[in-house]
Amino acid sequence: MTVVLRAETDTDSIESVVAGLFRAWNAGDALALAGFFAEDADLVNIHGMHLRGRQAIAGIYEMLFRSVFSGSSVTGGISSSRLLRNHVAVVHLKATVTMQAAPMTGSHNVVTSVVMVHDAAHWRVASLHNTLVSAA
Amino acid sequence: MTVVLRAETDTDSIESVVAGLFRAWNAGDALALAGFFAEDADLVNIHGMHLRGRQAIAGIYEMLFRSVFSGSSVTGGISSSRLLRNHVAVVHLKATVTMQAAPMTGSHNVVTSVVMVHDAAHWRVASLHNTLVSAA
Repeated sequence: MTVVLRAETDTDSIESVVAGLFRAWNAGDALALAGFFAEDADLVNIHGMHLRGRQAIAGIYEMLFRSVFSGSSVTGGISSSRLLRNHVAVVHLKATVTMQAAPMTGSHNVVTSVVMVHDAAHWRVASLHNTLVSAA
Repeated sequence: MTVVLRAETDTDSIESVVAGLFRAWNAGDALALAGFFAEDADLVNIHGMHLRGRQAIAGIYEMLFRSVFSGSSVTGGISSSRLLRNHVAVVHLKATVTMQAAPMTGSHNVVTSVVMVHDAAHWRVASLHNTLVSAA
């Protein structure tokens, strides 16, 4: 499986990358989702699963979108964003994921930390970490 | 409350910052813990609570170490570490937190993403995100 990067217009701002991630999730499109990540990106999901690399992200989400995340949708946006250095940003997202499939049927609030790196004129996700917001 | 930064020798390498974070946790020392963070750091904990800034981190952990995290201990270490740019590193930790207090009594595996920035000869935590590893 080869993950093809999307058109330049999808990654020319931090906001457009975030919008693209949400759009890809809502389309259940693992290849599009992975295309926003750097080739050597890290992703830690709500289950504490640590994925390494764009190919791994595409492969696992291909499976997840066919099973537990099947029919799921996400809404939300950026809650904070700041540059750590030139071309390196830390972005936090607040989102609500609505799951159709068991065992997580229903709506769940999540907080996401994203590190983005600007490279060759585009922002890419270098590291992303997702956590469910618990009632506790 | 003023958070005093620790001695230089505690933050001169990524490994020493990680060791310092674990040592501070095991001592239940919120001020020491917060001292490893940059002044404007972000922290997202296992409950999806997003803390902003060293002062907030010190204040909340002071409370947590007196309540749900009272008597807790952590073991673990670095599972991966890479430089995104000069002076900016993404580090992942695998750790086991053993809780004494309800409602989380027992041992829990966690995965942590940490962004560190090297500034004025020291590594500081710019962003940290913690997630429980679930059995699912």
